[in-house]
Amino acid sequence: MGDVKAEVRAVAEAARAASAKLAQTSARERDGALRAMAAALRAQAGAIVAANARDMEAARAKGTADSLLDRLMLDAGRIEGMASALEDLAALPDPVGRVREERVLENGIALSRVSVPLGVVAVVYEARPNVTADAAGICLKSGNAAVLRGGSMAAASNEAIARVLHDAATAAGMPRGCVGLVSSADRAAADALMELHGVVDVLIPRGGAGLIRRCVEHSKVPVIETGTGNCHVYVHETADADKARAIVLNAKCRRFGVCNAAETLLVDRSIARSFLPETMTALAREGVTLHCDDEARDCAAWAADAAARAGVEVRFDCAEEDDWATEYLAPELAVKCVEGVDAAIDHVNRYGTRHSEAIVADPQVPAGAQAIEAFLARVDAAAVYANASTAFTDGGQFGLGAEIGISTQKLHARGPFALEALTSYKYVLRGDGQVRA
Amino acid sequence: MGDVKAEVRAVAEAARAASAKLAQTSARERDGALRAMAAALRAQAGAIVAANARDMEAARAKGTADSLLDRLMLDAGRIEGMASALEDLAALPDPVGRVREERVLENGIALSRVSVPLGVVAVVYEARPNVTADAAGICLKSGNAAVLRGGSMAAASNEAIARVLHDAATAAGMPRGCVGLVSSADRAAADALMELHGVVDVLIPRGGAGLIRRCVEHSKVPVIETGTGNCHVYVHETADADKARAIVLNAKCRRFGVCNAAETLLVDRSIARSFLPETMTALAREGVTLHCDDEARDCAAWAADAAARAGVEVRFDCAEEDDWATEYLAPELAVKCVEGVDAAIDHVNRYGTRHSEAIVADPQVPAGAQAIEAFLARVDAAAVYANASTAFTDGGQFGLGAEIGISTQKLHARGPFALEALTSYKYVLRGDGQVRA
Repeated sequence: MGDVKAEVRAVAEAARAASAKLAQTSARERDGALRAMAAALRAQAGAIVAANARDMEAARAKGTADSLLDRLMLDAGRIEGMASALEDLAALPDPVGRVREERVLENGIALSRVSVPLGVVAVVYEARPNVTADAAGICLKSGNAAVLRGGSMAAASNEAIARVLHDAATAAGMPRGCVGLVSSADRAAADALMELHGVVDVLIPRGGAGLIRRCVEHSKVPVIETGTGNCHVYVHETADADKARAIVLNAKCRRFGVCNAAETLLVDRSIARSFLPETMTALAREGVTLHCDDEARDCAAWAADAAARAGVEVRFDCAEEDDWATEYLAPELAVKCVEGVDAAIDHVNRYGTRHSEAIVADPQVPAGAQAIEAFLARVDAAAVYANASTAFTDGGQFGLGAEIGISTQKLHARGPFALEALTSYKYVLRGDGQVRA
Repeated sequence: MGDVKAEVRAVAEAARAASAKLAQTSARERDGALRAMAAALRAQAGAIVAANARDMEAARAKGTADSLLDRLMLDAGRIEGMASALEDLAALPDPVGRVREERVLENGIALSRVSVPLGVVAVVYEARPNVTADAAGICLKSGNAAVLRGGSMAAASNEAIARVLHDAATAAGMPRGCVGLVSSADRAAADALMELHGVVDVLIPRGGAGLIRRCVEHSKVPVIETGTGNCHVYVHETADADKARAIVLNAKCRRFGVCNAAETLLVDRSIARSFLPETMTALAREGVTLHCDDEARDCAAWAADAAARAGVEVRFDCAEEDDWATEYLAPELAVKCVEGVDAAIDHVNRYGTRHSEAIVADPQVPAGAQAIEAFLARVDAAAVYANASTAFTDGGQFGLGAEIGISTQKLHARGPFALEALTSYKYVLRGDGQVRA
């Protein structure tokens, strides 16, 4: 434990020292380093794959599930993906040095507010080793030093990637320590990072709810909370049924394990019998189990009878109170009938995690337009959608460039956060001798 | 303790409920409420002064220092100040609902990013009861519910003010609970607030270093660190001596107890003997004791001899390592001679608290201009000044309108933070059935 603490502090302090130099580099120098890092990943792909093979072997020996093995695995194609992501970053505009505002005060002092890097950004993550390259790249692009703590399962892969990146970056003129990897991938390393107030400027946990809660509860370093998403799709009585069904299926089934997947379907009572059975059958075809309130259960039973004749099994049961608050991250969906938009908004604000929320309604009819405006205005979430799938909240769909996570807090960054959220600002004031009365 | 926790939670949950309604009020409604609150303070000035008299009496009985008694005291003039500050707030532009960006994505979804209130803002503060009105007003203006915990010494005053404000606000149509005061002004109340992650959106401690450290270390609610300022004035060899002296005196002596007061003077070695003695004598006239490195001490000794003949006592001693890191908040100043701007920047970045830092140099000569650019670019602080006093960082001098504090952290808000920093944003997305491939 003492060793881990000392190691983490040493890596973080090297990053701190590097950050002062990084803040003085030009965008051109940093972009050059990103391209050099991409080239180095390609050149050393063999060594990285070999390191990854050791992680894979150890994980298989432990009986790790196939889905996790797939997340862990690196091959030439995935390394190429990491490299080209770094090149994409190099092509993005510089987030540092931007003048956010400029004014001359009444006393003649010229004030400007200029974007500067945060300093040292720590990222704590789990399975995927590509996060090592993504996080290092995003931090470097924004002039920040990175301290990375990956998952233990990917230890050898992460070490190989971080070494290649650091060597390439320093060879390209970046300061030593600009990309630091904490080699101890256990919980003590994350705990040690949380203590480093004044050395680390922000801690970004990317992982399960347990990791995020631990950071929120214990970190002395400011945390950006990411990722927990209990998201809803609400189908208003004016909705076009086909559009609504497509949105529900996309939001639920596109990927079950992502934070912006829908976990509860809310449907206006007045259209439950016309809308739900066919929708439930379509969900069942995707393997989704339904947790239904009483009215939705009647619809599910009806759908199950009809679907059985077509050889499709509709699995459903009674929702319990917990279902409304559960982020399944799995082929499961809670279904509830509500009495109009106010009830839907109340339900979402009560059980949602302020991530991504959608309404489907017809904006061409007054009741639909009113419901849309009420939902968008009153639902408290990072992203509120009318007539589109919640699936757009991640994966760079908002056009912000490379994202480092999806924030579910309101401070500093909300929703998908990218390069701009890895900057702060300073006030620069130029006078000619002004003093205050 | 259990009672305090329950009381704090009840106040915070009432604020949470109010915040959902507040977020839907119009600027006009909120500005009307602010004016009604101002009128109520004036109408009830007698009751507030009477409550304050009880606090004053109790404080006097405890032998409280005069300077603290002065901070605690309310009279008609100070209550008028609180009222007119609320009216000034009402006249400021609405920080809520501002469209920060607007784009149509390639898939046709119309995206906008809109300012929204943070939700529930908790402010923990110490002596001055006027903070109760200021904080309540700033929160209401920005659509936030406020949870206030004032100092124990001002308990009766704060309670009277908060009651007047809450009653006036609700009579003007604001939701009940929009201004909450935690009556227990002890440490347990602050500790209980720190636990309320998910109920309180941000915690702003305004007070001494101990309070702020406790919040940073223990709060599960995101904290905005405020106030600690170990600020420097660096006098470059090209500086105009009179301007430099005026800036040093203003930054140190305008008010000793503020976070942006200068605590260390750095002077280029090459001008120490010409600049320091007269400056030191002027500081001595203001009652400032000097903690000097060896070279500055020689200057101080020389100044002391000369000043003694004029009847001025120059008090000085040898600086110890601790002096470079101390925020005196008192008529004391550390003085050090340095070898040029690089040494000055290194010293500031090593010992400073990233608050307000100033260089005095001549921008008309190349060496001075270079020193200024290096200092402004490389010093890591919320506000960096060339040729102006650090005294401008507080008191609304940056023209941001009413401030709730000076942030010394880099996340969310840095430097003086005002209404905009009490907002977050949401992404609003309007589609016509888009799903993600």
